[in-house]
Amino acid sequence: MSSKGIVKRSEDFSKWYNELVLKADLAEHSDVRGCMIIKPYGYAIWEKIKDQLDIMFKETGHQNAYFPLLIPKSYLSKEAAHVEGFAKECAVVTHYRLKNSEDGTGVIVDPEAKLEEELIIRPTSETIIWNTYKKWIQSYRDLPILVNQWANVVRWEMRTRLFLRTSEFLWQEGHTAHATKIEAVEETEKMLEVYAQFVQEFMAVPVIKGVKSENERFAGAEETYCIEALMQDGKALQAGTSHFLGQNFAKAFDVTFADKEGNKNHVWATSWGVSTRLMGALVMTHSDDKGLVLPPKLAPIQVVIVPIYKNEDQLLEISEYANSLIKELKSLNISVKFDNDDNKKPGWKFAEYEMKGVPLRIAIGPRDMENQTVELARRDNLSKSTVSQLDLPNLLLETLNLIQNDLFTRSSLFLKENTYSANSIDQMIEILDAKGGFIEAFWNGDSKSEHKIKELTKATIRCIPLNENQTGNCILTGEPNSKKVIFARAY
Amino acid sequence: MSSKGIVKRSEDFSKWYNELVLKADLAEHSDVRGCMIIKPYGYAIWEKIKDQLDIMFKETGHQNAYFPLLIPKSYLSKEAAHVEGFAKECAVVTHYRLKNSEDGTGVIVDPEAKLEEELIIRPTSETIIWNTYKKWIQSYRDLPILVNQWANVVRWEMRTRLFLRTSEFLWQEGHTAHATKIEAVEETEKMLEVYAQFVQEFMAVPVIKGVKSENERFAGAEETYCIEALMQDGKALQAGTSHFLGQNFAKAFDVTFADKEGNKNHVWATSWGVSTRLMGALVMTHSDDKGLVLPPKLAPIQVVIVPIYKNEDQLLEISEYANSLIKELKSLNISVKFDNDDNKKPGWKFAEYEMKGVPLRIAIGPRDMENQTVELARRDNLSKSTVSQLDLPNLLLETLNLIQNDLFTRSSLFLKENTYSANSIDQMIEILDAKGGFIEAFWNGDSKSEHKIKELTKATIRCIPLNENQTGNCILTGEPNSKKVIFARAY
Repeated sequence: MSSKGIVKRSEDFSKWYNELVLKADLAEHSDVRGCMIIKPYGYAIWEKIKDQLDIMFKETGHQNAYFPLLIPKSYLSKEAAHVEGFAKECAVVTHYRLKNSEDGTGVIVDPEAKLEEELIIRPTSETIIWNTYKKWIQSYRDLPILVNQWANVVRWEMRTRLFLRTSEFLWQEGHTAHATKIEAVEETEKMLEVYAQFVQEFMAVPVIKGVKSENERFAGAEETYCIEALMQDGKALQAGTSHFLGQNFAKAFDVTFADKEGNKNHVWATSWGVSTRLMGALVMTHSDDKGLVLPPKLAPIQVVIVPIYKNEDQLLEISEYANSLIKELKSLNISVKFDNDDNKKPGWKFAEYEMKGVPLRIAIGPRDMENQTVELARRDNLSKSTVSQLDLPNLLLETLNLIQNDLFTRSSLFLKENTYSANSIDQMIEILDAKGGFIEAFWNGDSKSEHKIKELTKATIRCIPLNENQTGNCILTGEPNSKKVIFARAY
Repeated sequence: MSSKGIVKRSEDFSKWYNELVLKADLAEHSDVRGCMIIKPYGYAIWEKIKDQLDIMFKETGHQNAYFPLLIPKSYLSKEAAHVEGFAKECAVVTHYRLKNSEDGTGVIVDPEAKLEEELIIRPTSETIIWNTYKKWIQSYRDLPILVNQWANVVRWEMRTRLFLRTSEFLWQEGHTAHATKIEAVEETEKMLEVYAQFVQEFMAVPVIKGVKSENERFAGAEETYCIEALMQDGKALQAGTSHFLGQNFAKAFDVTFADKEGNKNHVWATSWGVSTRLMGALVMTHSDDKGLVLPPKLAPIQVVIVPIYKNEDQLLEISEYANSLIKELKSLNISVKFDNDDNKKPGWKFAEYEMKGVPLRIAIGPRDMENQTVELARRDNLSKSTVSQLDLPNLLLETLNLIQNDLFTRSSLFLKENTYSANSIDQMIEILDAKGGFIEAFWNGDSKSEHKIKELTKATIRCIPLNENQTGNCILTGEPNSKKVIFARAY
């Protein structure tokens, strides 16, 4: 029963994150460079994220499918920008067989089993999917295609952090095909909205919606829409992207359709994705020095019941009540755990469920049984109160909703309080060094300026916010009529 | 609107299968050797399989987790039998970067980005998981570990068939760790029971439960339990396996635990899996010359409504009724599609939904509206009847249940009628050549006999049935007290 304490956020935010992810049993590093193991508790949260997103994708007319893990090397070269963006960081399969080594000590790669063309483990699936859509699309009647896939992808990374940047990660990638540009742009924006809604309503993480500057666009996209969140340390995290791909992939893979008049046109495309990176955003938005804080809508266990007892009789009495309570909570779709493990002390259990971010803790002792009360503790604000057993299930339901809302209110306030305006590079640096945050500033739209600002401030343009028409003087060059954008130092 | 006809089963069963899988939009080959694309309709069925199994795994106390796709080559060598079974057919990652070719025509593997140790794409995950369990397990308090993972795996295959044998396939793999042998054996048997229950109750596919002979065991297992199904062409298909791994992997990866007395012991293990191969079993058990036949419990669309009309007014009237029916069906959790596509004729639609195996089809014309009736067609037995609109939702619900049961009754009868006894090798060959099927026969338990029988008959021992105590004379050697086993030619 080692202490599960973690370093404080104020001391070392990065270390705090690493320790929390390990001690809350979310994930750990594997022996394979950059590949993580998602532990059952962490995976249970990811499953909740996945299930809810899947519902939302289906409600917006999408179907799931599955495309191959391996992509012929030559496919990557077909779209010029795409290959620049992705070919550099790929895991390459060159052989298909091992054999026993001659000295009998192990296995070696069989040189005779060399592939004619190397295969790449998908870093993203546009190329193999558009190579397939070519066969699926002939006529306007075959459009739109609204397909999503849940999959693992690999992008070789030298410096990795659990959930935030790993060589292998889990994600979903939507790939849609449309007859018109308008429809494709609408789809791109619709999916950004779905992401924003999910992240805000379920993760309780507020986001700014916008589009990326050309520099930060997805390799092969004409426009990349994104949602950007702000972590407690003042650094930004890109939480999801939705790409309008124009006709780039349709042209690269020669995908055309006959319209009603029989004319052939190239198809319009979108792709959009979120990944296990969302787990990192979830952790870094809400958690505290005692461990994880989870929004009730994504908590694998929403309520934990801890009995306090000195003898078997007391435990028996408490268990009887707990079991009837559990029944009622299940009928309200509240997930509950009764931890009657006799090997562990209540104090240990309290710390454990705080570390794991269980939103509500109920403690019941003999005195409570006498008074028909329980002690109710909220994980988010650490408040405790003694409440009546009468109508407790409804109180718990209401309190879970309250916590969900309070977390969003708190994180929204944090975002607001940490969004600043800057009129000069010096001022931007000063704010970023002192507190981090989102910096609203004007930018002349030029890539060179963008690079220069990044060089000077270590901040990137997170996005050009949607529906933002304000203009002003460029923070670098002073040019008038520059557009307002959001800068931040980012994960 | 090309004809969707497929070759008859009686003409060429194998071709019938291939055509059906393509024309029912279940899956197709990709350009990557042996890797398939699972199309949305096929994936929707797989999702139903997955969701139901996942519920059953969780009901039996399992949690999901996720382990790396890539395994260091040396891990495979740690368990002697395992490396023999799996190392030969692996996709090997040797490099982690591509670069532009010097002539500018494409990308080539960067020779400077060679991995120190090659990585294998997991063919199964015992090695990487037991390397992880070593860190998770110290004391008996850490046991049991009951973990499952849904994942893709790659086993290089030269001859592939959609769903039945593909280089990449989707599956789940359970990996459990226990303090005692008894508990591990119980787990192995419990999961076989879960598989049998799922395959019989949801897929309506009857199975024989048994254990494999030593030859057919999983590489690294002490005992492999399996469920075996019989396809319409008389060939057997292994539908799921559950392995008792003894202490083999615990010893290979040095995983021990301290028991209550503080003594160190090696941990006991199981693993169990089913894959997208189940899709093949589903197709080949129920489908017919008109296409797919799906058990209602796994059908993405359970009821399709086709309007028959000559003008807008008639369509409007039918649509109004259809919409109210849809509402009622949804409240009964029946999935329904109203196909009012004006570009396609009813006859085309009938053929299409027959091909896709939609269990119930409702056709409604103006005459039906007058008479308050509909035409109801069952996909499984192709029967049609005119039924009242009154209380139709309940009739549909009952009929879906009836179809589910009828399919299982029919396939069970088929299995029974195609299970034969044979007393001599010649008789076995005669039966197998004429009709295929399961052959019950006695076997002396010797590997050499098993190989010889396979050589003579092309049949393998599918399993040694559980709870089978009958003994007799070995079909090859005539030795008495030989045990009864099931032979078949198999997929």
